[in-house]
Amino acid sequence: MKDLTTVYQHGTLAMLVAGLFEGTMPLSELLTHGDSGIGTADSLDGELVIVDGKAYQVRESGEVVEMTPDTKIPFASVHYDDVDAEQTHIENMNDRQLQERLIKDHNMFNVFYAIKITGTFSHMHTRVVPRQEKPYPKLTVATKVQPEFEQDQVHGTIVGYFMPYLFLGAAVGGIHWHFINDARDFGGHILDFQLASGDVSVQVLENLNQHLPVNNTPFRDAQMNLQQVGDEINEAEH
Amino acid sequence: MKDLTTVYQHGTLAMLVAGLFEGTMPLSELLTHGDSGIGTADSLDGELVIVDGKAYQVRESGEVVEMTPDTKIPFASVHYDDVDAEQTHIENMNDRQLQERLIKDHNMFNVFYAIKITGTFSHMHTRVVPRQEKPYPKLTVATKVQPEFEQDQVHGTIVGYFMPYLFLGAAVGGIHWHFINDARDFGGHILDFQLASGDVSVQVLENLNQHLPVNNTPFRDAQMNLQQVGDEINEAEH
Ligand SMILES: [Zn+2]
Ligand SMILES: [Zn+2]
Repeated sequence: MKDLTTVYQHGTLAMLVAGLFEGTMPLSELLTHGDSGIGTADSLDGELVIVDGKAYQVRESGEVVEMTPDTKIPFASVHYDDVDAEQTHIENMNDRQLQERLIKDHNMFNVFYAIKITGTFSHMHTRVVPRQEKPYPKLTVATKVQPEFEQDQVHGTIVGYFMPYLFLGAAVGGIHWHFINDARDFGGHILDFQLASGDVSVQVLENLNQHLPVNNTPFRDAQMNLQQVGDEINEAEH
Repeated sequence: MKDLTTVYQHGTLAMLVAGLFEGTMPLSELLTHGDSGIGTADSLDGELVIVDGKAYQVRESGEVVEMTPDTKIPFASVHYDDVDAEQTHIENMNDRQLQERLIKDHNMFNVFYAIKITGTFSHMHTRVVPRQEKPYPKLTVATKVQPEFEQDQVHGTIVGYFMPYLFLGAAVGGIHWHFINDARDFGGHILDFQLASGDVSVQVLENLNQHLPVNNTPFRDAQMNLQQVGDEINEAEH
């Protein structure tokens, strides 16, 4: 039976901050923990969006490819979409207004939430992290230049999470969401949007199942300065 | 089948810091996730030590009682003890020396570990958090005065965890361990000890399953200042 109350996360944001971009879990294994989610690929090769059990990789060229089961993932969060979740119809709202409304209406602050939005966006603006080569730099360096993409009048799906700020460092604090269009040829990490008309569903998740790559030597030996992690997350993610 | 790779945690340390001492999960439910662990009881009523599937509550009087299944728990971590884990025999070592050795030998830094020590302690020094009344104070106030207990030549068991500092706030960072003697009439949160002779086993845990009391209104409405959480944990736990 599908567990509709857990967000499963492999890897941590702090690992990316430390330059640990090597994939450490095959996609096929990740997908045994959920059919929806977001993340990145080995070597920070683009933005990952998982919808209906299919994993799409939006690459720095803007191209979208369906990922193969053996692709290794350094960092991703997944959950099982509750298809019976209540939907709210929303019209004419931008990303900031919608974030504010979701957080306030659901009193999200201290709890994990999955967010799914299907609709028509009069504007969608994304960015995609560029693939890195070994020896990997730190995240702040890797994310200094990131290709951005824009489309108007695009129909598609947003998948994302609200994570309490208590888990900042393990996860991204607050709302973090990715987009993929219906044609599966445009998407990425969301910078901003204007939703023309869409259905929003949110799913409260009681559990964060945080998995760590305990057999990965670079991770085991990494010296992570946690004071710095917070500062560098702010620099790289915002 | 028992999952030997997961530490399950109900509640967070940050909730205690904020004065959320109300029990939110029955012990019976907690024990479906492990047979070993540590925590506290409703209203911060003493120190919890779980060994071999039995949960002992060390109260501020020093008395030890076996907890009933319906007791509500605000914060606890549990796992299934791996009875086949390799054991290391240790003689004449104090708590600081043993902590240093365990962390270094196992390269614990970035990963979750369960630690179990069975042996004879030439000295064991514990403390017990005193039961609080509603309206609950903050943790720093509740822990200002805590009864301490000492015994020499005592045989018993230590149960505890190493948690990466990345999860400080959700959990206690570093090593946090509790003691219960064989006679089950002395124990508590460990301040210091001298181990005369004992067997130490450690268990690497790939997963932290963090469960939150999503239906508890005081938790949902709590405004947690996370900058302050770090400072107050240092004040209350050290
Ligand atoms: Zn992203
Ligand atoms: Zn303790």
